[in-house]
Amino acid sequence: MTDKDPVQPTDDEARALARSLLHDATFGALAVIDAATGAPSVTRIAIGTDPTGAPVTLISRLATHHTALTADNRCALLLGEPGPKGDPLTHPRMTLHCTAEFVASGTEAHAALRAHYLASRPKSKLYIDFPDFTFLRFTITGGLLNGGFGRAFRLAPADLVAALTG
Amino acid sequence: MTDKDPVQPTDDEARALARSLLHDATFGALAVIDAATGAPSVTRIAIGTDPTGAPVTLISRLATHHTALTADNRCALLLGEPGPKGDPLTHPRMTLHCTAEFVASGTEAHAALRAHYLASRPKSKLYIDFPDFTFLRFTITGGLLNGGFGRAFRLAPADLVAALTG
Repeated sequence: MTDKDPVQPTDDEARALARSLLHDATFGALAVIDAATGAPSVTRIAIGTDPTGAPVTLISRLATHHTALTADNRCALLLGEPGPKGDPLTHPRMTLHCTAEFVASGTEAHAALRAHYLASRPKSKLYIDFPDFTFLRFTITGGLLNGGFGRAFRLAPADLVAALTG
Repeated sequence: MTDKDPVQPTDDEARALARSLLHDATFGALAVIDAATGAPSVTRIAIGTDPTGAPVTLISRLATHHTALTADNRCALLLGEPGPKGDPLTHPRMTLHCTAEFVASGTEAHAALRAHYLASRPKSKLYIDFPDFTFLRFTITGGLLNGGFGRAFRLAPADLVAALTG
C-alpha cells in the first residue's frame, strides 16, 4: 500500500473514543456501490442503535442506496460529525466497514428494534410505519478511527463490542 | 429500480441550491472503492474549488483513499453539512458522482490550483507543501440533490456548470 503506515496501535483511549462516536451518532454518511454502474455512491442517513448497540438505520425503499444494498450489501459508515466550532478536519471521526441486513417487518426482531429506535428517536414516529420504510442493521467488519491529525487507529469489531454489551 | 420515482424535474431553484452547496463546502464525505476488497469506503476530506469552480481536495498519499483512487478513480462526494440547529436529516445536501484526477506538482495547473486553494483556505499553508500531500480535482459526472423531505432532484454536470463559469 505505502512504505510508511501512519496507523498507531489501537489502545483503550482509541477504543473509548470509537465507542462514544458510535453511541452519540444520530446521522452519518453511508457509502454503497451503485448496482447499475459499479461506482461508489454516498448519502446521508439517520443512525440509531439496536438493543445490542449495533448501528441501525431506517431508509426508504425508494432510495437509490436501498437498491444498491439489495444488490450488494457491503457498505461503509462515516460517523463523528463536527460541531459548530473548531476545524471540522481535526474533529474525531471513524469509518466503519459493514454489511447491511434488512430487518423484515412482522418479526420479533423488528418489533424490538422499532420500540428501541422510537424510544431514542421520538421524531421518527412520523415515518417509522410508512410502508416504504425499512430497517437496516449494520454488522461491523472493521474500521478506521481518525482522532485528529496524526492519530489514526485500525478498528476490529471487538474494539466496539464493549459498547455493544456494556 | 422502483415503480415510483420520487425524483422531481430539476428546476432553477434546485440548480441554485446545488451550486451554493458546492460553493460553500469546506469539507465533505468521499466514497471510494477499496482496492483490496472491492467494498465501498468513506472518509472525511477537505473541499475547495479550483479556479474554474470545480471541487478539489488535498489528501495524503498515506491515506487509504489515495490508494483506492489510484486503482479506481470513480468516487462520490456528499456535500452540504448541517449546522448546529434543526434536524440534520432535513438539511439540504447532495451526492456528486465524480472521477478524480491527481494534479502533478511542478505543473502550471498545480501552481494555479495551489495559489487559489491557499487564498480560500489559508490554514492549509501548514501542510500544503508536505511532500506526501497531493491535489485531486473532481470531474462531476452526475448527482442527486436532496433539498429536504420529498425534495429530490437529479443533477447533470451542466446544472453545476453555471457556478463554474459565472
